[in-house]
Formats: sequence, structure tokens, C-alpha cells
Amino acid sequence: MSQATIPVWDVFEVTFEGPAEGNPYLEVEFSAVFTGNGRTVRVPGFYDGEGRYIIRFMPDAEGQWHFETTSSVSALAGRTGGLRAVPARPGAHGPVRVANQFHFAHADGTPYLPFGTTCYAWTHQPQSLQDETLETLGKAGFNKIRMGVFPKDYPFNTNEPLHDVFAMGADGKRDFDQPNPVAFRHFETQVGKLRDMGIEADIIIFHPYDRWGYCDMSAEQDFRYVAYLAARLGAFANVWWSLANEYDFLLDTKPMEQWDRYFQILEQNDPYGHLKSIHNGDVRMNYDHSKPWVSHVCIQNWDVKKTPDWRADYGKPLVNDEPEYEGNIWPAWGNISAQELTHRFWVTALRGGYAGHGETFEHPDDIIWWAKGGKLYGEAWKRIKFLRQLLEEDVTTGLTPLGGTTSWPWSRVSGAEDGHVRYIYFGEHQPAQWTTGLPTEDGAYEVDLIDTWAMTIEPAERIAPVVPHPTRHGAVVRGGKPDAAFGVRLPSRPHMALRIRKLD
Amino acid sequence: MSQATIPVWDVFEVTFEGPAEGNPYLEVEFSAVFTGNGRTVRVPGFYDGEGRYIIRFMPDAEGQWHFETTSSVSALAGRTGGLRAVPARPGAHGPVRVANQFHFAHADGTPYLPFGTTCYAWTHQPQSLQDETLETLGKAGFNKIRMGVFPKDYPFNTNEPLHDVFAMGADGKRDFDQPNPVAFRHFETQVGKLRDMGIEADIIIFHPYDRWGYCDMSAEQDFRYVAYLAARLGAFANVWWSLANEYDFLLDTKPMEQWDRYFQILEQNDPYGHLKSIHNGDVRMNYDHSKPWVSHVCIQNWDVKKTPDWRADYGKPLVNDEPEYEGNIWPAWGNISAQELTHRFWVTALRGGYAGHGETFEHPDDIIWWAKGGKLYGEAWKRIKFLRQLLEEDVTTGLTPLGGTTSWPWSRVSGAEDGHVRYIYFGEHQPAQWTTGLPTEDGAYEVDLIDTWAMTIEPAERIAPVVPHPTRHGAVVRGGKPDAAFGVRLPSRPHMALRIRKLD
Repeated sequence: MSQATIPVWDVFEVTFEGPAEGNPYLEVEFSAVFTGNGRTVRVPGFYDGEGRYIIRFMPDAEGQWHFETTSSVSALAGRTGGLRAVPARPGAHGPVRVANQFHFAHADGTPYLPFGTTCYAWTHQPQSLQDETLETLGKAGFNKIRMGVFPKDYPFNTNEPLHDVFAMGADGKRDFDQPNPVAFRHFETQVGKLRDMGIEADIIIFHPYDRWGYCDMSAEQDFRYVAYLAARLGAFANVWWSLANEYDFLLDTKPMEQWDRYFQILEQNDPYGHLKSIHNGDVRMNYDHSKPWVSHVCIQNWDVKKTPDWRADYGKPLVNDEPEYEGNIWPAWGNISAQELTHRFWVTALRGGYAGHGETFEHPDDIIWWAKGGKLYGEAWKRIKFLRQLLEEDVTTGLTPLGGTTSWPWSRVSGAEDGHVRYIYFGEHQPAQWTTGLPTEDGAYEVDLIDTWAMTIEPAERIAPVVPHPTRHGAVVRGGKPDAAFGVRLPSRPHMALRIRKLD
Repeated sequence: MSQATIPVWDVFEVTFEGPAEGNPYLEVEFSAVFTGNGRTVRVPGFYDGEGRYIIRFMPDAEGQWHFETTSSVSALAGRTGGLRAVPARPGAHGPVRVANQFHFAHADGTPYLPFGTTCYAWTHQPQSLQDETLETLGKAGFNKIRMGVFPKDYPFNTNEPLHDVFAMGADGKRDFDQPNPVAFRHFETQVGKLRDMGIEADIIIFHPYDRWGYCDMSAEQDFRYVAYLAARLGAFANVWWSLANEYDFLLDTKPMEQWDRYFQILEQNDPYGHLKSIHNGDVRMNYDHSKPWVSHVCIQNWDVKKTPDWRADYGKPLVNDEPEYEGNIWPAWGNISAQELTHRFWVTALRGGYAGHGETFEHPDDIIWWAKGGKLYGEAWKRIKFLRQLLEEDVTTGLTPLGGTTSWPWSRVSGAEDGHVRYIYFGEHQPAQWTTGLPTEDGAYEVDLIDTWAMTIEPAERIAPVVPHPTRHGAVVRGGKPDAAFGVRLPSRPHMALRIRKLD
């Protein structure tokens, strides 16, 4: 038979004709086993309507792959085929994985520093608006986007979705045993476009903002839906699984053991092991991210100086999905200033975590980036792009914070390092000079002064280090000698940072 | 005998001649009992050097007072006299007490909202600088100042004090059994000047910044010194006792039970029951302010949104002595921007606490307000004065925060009320409109928009209240109706506040 040629980390797809009667979604088991490179990978298939049964597979290594299907239906069982995986497309680095405990990297080892934004329901808007969202994303500089499978019913979100996620039944009610293939085909098309733009799709599986009944699906319906997502979307390299936005607001219908089960279903049905997490609404209701199926910590919390504590609580990468959003809408999570959101990105990054962006400016037609996409009107995104570019110049392993939330002076200012580079961010602090955290040996260092708001980088003026007057307490004498080899002059205004590069 | 006439809350002082030989400070017991208004008050006396023994008494009620002395020395025992207490001087309202659990009022019931500053060692500077400090205080708008009895040895604080607090012994060593009356007379002269300016003197009894040996005084020497302060200074209406700055940095020589004992000695020797507290250095080392001898909570902590938690922890008035200082010196506690310190004052006030000011700009001669006084160079003090004036227009009982650190939306924006007035401070939030927390009935209200940085107050534009789209979760429907009778238009920039006054 003829053989497909598929770049590594691209999607191989094969369709079979099978039974259309009854409810194949419920009744037909269908999967394939791929073998290649000495490995065997079980890949779930899915029903795409009208008698079409699809297997998708993302090869993770070059070479020959062979598959054979299994099914409860004889017409779909024992079908075989193969593909030849060729080198990845330029710019494709494979799925993002946890790397170096608190950080991320693509499958090919390329460091990945998440700088995400949020457009919860962008795929449910009119097509022209979706096109505009993609255009904006093309220039904005984000490399991750949080987006929901379900449409959203919420303040500023009252329109009907472009496509119903589940089909309407004969009784005029939504039938949660009948996925709407049109909706899923559209959703995965957009995920694929994001992939080709180098943007990770952080896919939100459940959320509580609902007037269509998705919140009230039965446990079995939920479990099938999660497995279906894994089968349809798992082959997209840029997929992250976000089990829920604000899962705790759903606990009345979906108890905790059900959340654990969703994770387990993903583990069973996603052969690629995409990243998996979940986040809270109430700040006291973090999910227990130490559970083994959680790859990284997601939280929502504005109190970003605590980032080292959250990291330490779970020992995993820390993504703060919502440190509040830039904007001016009335909800208090959606109206901080651009300067404040920029500040929170810097504080989070320089304390070893990753922050998420959102923009929520009032709009006459409620076309607000955070939910619907469209245009960006704010000022933070430019500074976030600047920060991303800056960090990507040097950071490879990932940033380790200097000190923690109780260590001097890093409880107040933020600092982090990675190999040969170190950053210090002063935020609301505006010293005229600084010494602590600078190199202790007078070697070859390049020290730059960064204005995080003006987005300028210039060589810092080196001066003598601070020699603090000793503090004495009876026989105990502290200080009296500098804690670095040199100091720098700073401009006595807030939101400045330093970059210290060790030269070889 | 002739009788003194003393305004209520002023100092009655009477001096007796007694033995000068030996060490009267150690050897002579001397006190008096005052009777008047059907009450009996034991008042400790003190030795002022050169054979002078002094009793000071602050009458707290008009009318006739009689006293009789007691002493271990016959020449000082059984001496009698009296005074007639007349109405208080204009503007004198008596010592500040705890009022309404979380707040303060003068003895005559006048509300007292602390707006303090910090000049730790101002009384130890050259006299001309002290005069300048008083001149600055005359215009600055602070009504409390933190100041140490001991001089200070610390970065930026290297000069010798104007007067040694204890005398030099014959052996050329400082003799902690010999107070230097010159130093104490000077100190209390300055305390009296502050009193006459309407400024409370928050007197710091111990601190760890020492090269003179004060940190290493014995427990007995400490106890005598505390009792001596009570006897000398208790009659000044404006005295507050601050047991220590950063007591936890002194625990190596002064264990916890000793700190408790200092409080108890003050209770025994200060017949007026001046306010008493103590504050931490390390944020994890708050003193247990629930102990009964602590009148109010003092802390140092930059994380001011936690103010309601700290209040709740101890159930007493909360004074945050150091939410970091405006300035540009290198230590990270002393270089936040004016806008940030102003912000922290508003957040603290509108979460039911009281913040303290300090200013720490680099100066060629290290004349920095926070330690030495002199001039103010910053911008925060003007906004703090504006805040004080604003609150004093309406606040009588004291501000009660709206919600706590976990209640929506008051975990993010700050709000507080007192009787007919309510304030909302948005800080880093910049909504274009606001409804939550505004009156629920469309009555007679005056609503003003306050720019906390520009210091402007103007009528707010009333608009229709937000009618949020309902959030549905299956059968549960939230929202859908406004939570106030009207909304206000806001300018979409940070650091704005609202004042809502109910009109009768």
C-alpha cells in the first residue's frame, strides 16, 4: 500500500468507514497500535460522524511506523497501514515537557518559557473575529493561549457559540452522548493553526460558566468527553490539558474524585503525555498539585511575591494563569493597570514562575480579548513581549529565584539566575545604587540596566560597592564589608531591572 | 502652703532636696500618692542628680489634688503638697487610649487617627538639626513620631549622640547604674515640645543598633531603666511606650520573659496606662500581641493587604510601623516610591489599620529623615497629610474594613466604613465604573471621586449600576441583578478612591 510521509510531531491521520447506525460514540470501541523504533504505542481512535472513524498519530521519531487497528466492530478491526516519519518541519520542536523540575522544554530540548495569554472562548466567535485574533496573536509575542472547548456564559459573554459542542437530540434537548463533529473539527483546526504559529494551546476541558448544561453532564458523559478529546486532539503537538478553569466552582456537581479520574483518563488515552494541570477560583482552593498525574502547578493568584512559596509547595513548574488582568471592566480581577500587570510578570518570572496575560478593556460590543479575542488595546502585552525576548536571549535551564519569600533582600526585591546570567528586578523599589546579588568577584561581567516599562537596555554604570556601616549588638558585629565586588548606579525610579552576564 | 494651678493633662512637678551621696538611683526609693476626685494614684518619683528628687504628676480631672510622699530616706518621706487642676489647655485632649477595639481616642473622647512618622535618633542630633526637625513636623501633618531613647549605630548613623544616656563611670566605662540627667532632661524637653504641637511621642525603649553597650545591660539594669522612664516621662500626655524596635534581633541578650517583664514594669510604674506595644524585625517574629499588657499591635510588614488578618489575629488596634519607607537608599526597606508608600497608607487605612511613614533619601551628610530628622524631600508625606485630613473630616469611631483578605471583591480592592461614611480605594485597579459597595438604597448620598496622588476631590458621576449577566451553573444562577442602587463612572486610571457620605 502507499505510505504517508509525515514530519515528526505532525499529525498522521487515517479514516475508515464503519457503522453509522445506533450511537457509535457510545457503542463502538476503536483504537490502533503503532509500532516503530522498537516501540509500541496504543492510540485511541474516535468517531467523526457519518460513519467515519479516525485514527490520529503524532510520530515522535523519524523512521518507519506501522499500525494495526482493534475494534469491537469487525469492519474496523485488523486494519493496517504505515507511515514514514521524516524530519520535523522547521520551527517545530515537539510537545512541551517539564524540564529541570521547575521549568519546561520542547521534546527536542529547546527551552520553552511560557508567556501565555487568555482568550477563553475565541473559537466560539464569528469566523472574522477568529481571523482577527490569529492576526493579533501573530504579532503579540505570546507562545501559549488558554482556550476552552465549551462556549462561555458569563458577564460580557452572552452570545451563542459558532457551533454547539454537542448535538441537539431529537427531543430538542442537547444530547451529551452525541458530540458535534463540526464543532470539534473547527476547534482542532484552530489548535492546528496555533501550532503552526508556535503557540501552545492550553485547552480548558471544563469550566463553570454555562447555560447549555455542560456543567451538569453525568460522570460517565464527562469521562467519555475527556477520552474523546484525548483521541481527537492528542496528536497536536501544542496541546496542554487544563482540566478546568476554577474547578472549585464546579465541586457541587463534580466532586474531587471525579477530577482525579479525568486526569487518569487522560493518562490512559493520551499516548503523548501532554502537560496536565488545573486551577482554582478561590485562593484557598488550590488543587493538590502534588498528585502524580499533575505535570505542573496552575494557580490564579494576584499575590505574586509568593511565587517561590507556591513552587516549593509542590516542587513542580509554577504557572500563574491569572495574576489579574490589564483592563478597566468592573470585576476586580479584570482592571489592573498595564504597569501593574507588567510588574507582576517580572516579579513572577524573577521568582521562578510563569505568569499569564489577559486583557479586559470595556468594549461597546463586549469584544474583550480575555474571552473573545480580537484586538489588543493595552500596554502590558508589549512589555511582556519585551520580557520574553530578553529572557530567551539567555535563559536555558530556567530561572531559579535568589532567596525566598523570607530571605533578605529577596523577600522585597526579586532576583533569579540561570547559569551565566542573573537578573534583579526592583519593582516598586527605587534605590539609587545597588550591590547585593552582584558578582562577588571582579571578573568579566556585562551589567545592563533595564527599564521594564520603557523597554530600554543600556550598560549600567559601575560604582564602588556599598560598604555598610557595621551593625553591632554587643559582641555580634554584622556587615562592615561589601557583599559584592562592585555596585551599580541606578536612576532612583521604580520598575528598573539589572541583567548581569558572566562573560567567558 | 501655696498651691500650683495645673491644667488637666499638663505636668505638675515638685522637687525635693535629698541625699546625693552613694548612688541614689540604686539606693533611694521615692514615690508619692496623689488623692483627688475620690481616687488615689501612686506616682513614682525619680532622682535627677545633684540631690534633686522629683515627682511628676499629670492630673486627668479638674479639681483639688493632694499628695504625700513615701521614701526609704526620711528626708523624702511624708512630704505633702497639692495642686488645683484647671481646665485643659486649648487643643489638649489627653493621652491616647484604645477605643472601639481597633481604634484610638484621646482621654476626652476626641478620635485619634495615628498618622505617624519615624525619626529614630532625632533627639541625639545637633541642636540646630533638632530645631529644623520640629519646624518640619510643624508643617508635615504627622500626629505621632517614633523616636528612641538610645542613640543609634547603624548604616547612615555613625555620629556620636548629643548626650550620653548613661553617665561615664570613674573607670572610663559607661555606667548603666547612672542615668545621665542631662540626656533625660533634653529628651523630655523634646517630648514636651511634641506634646504642645499635638504630636504623640512613640518612645522606643530598646533597639539593637548599638555600639555603646545598651544592648548588653543586665536584666536588672534594664528593669531599672524602664521604671525610670516611666517615672520621668509618664506625666507627659503624649507618651506611647514602644518596648523595642525589632525586639527579635535582641533575643540573644534579652530573652522573651524579659520582654514580658518590661511590659509589667511599665504597668506598675506608669499610673496613666499609656499605650504599650513592641514590634518585630523578621516578618515571622511578631510578638504575641494578644498578651494582656499589649494595648495595640505594632508590626513591620510591607504586605499591607493582609491588614485585616493581622487585626483579626489579635483583636486590637493595628499599627504597621514600617510598611517600607519612601526613598532611594540601598537597603530594600528604604527605597520604595512615593506612590507606593502613599498606596500602602491608603490600603492600610481602608483595611482598618494605621500605617507609619519614613523617608530615606540619600544625603551627602547622611541627614536622613528616618533617623535624624531635618527636612523632608519626598512626595508621600503630602499625600499622607491629605489622607489624614480627609479621614478626619468624617471618621469618628474608626474604620471597619469591608470584607477581609479572602472576600470578594475586598480581597483585591480596599474598602472601609464608619457610620455615615464609606470609602473605597482601588489602588492598582482602574475600573471604568463601579457598583459594589455603593449604597443599596437610592437615598441621599454624596459621592466623591478622589485622586489619591493628585489630591483632588470632586463629585463622582453617577450612572446606572452594573447589572451583571447571570452566571449559571446548572440550576444555580448567581448575579443578574445589581448589588447597589447606582454606580459611578471612574477614570480608568490607578490610585483613585471613592467617598460615599450618607446625608441625613
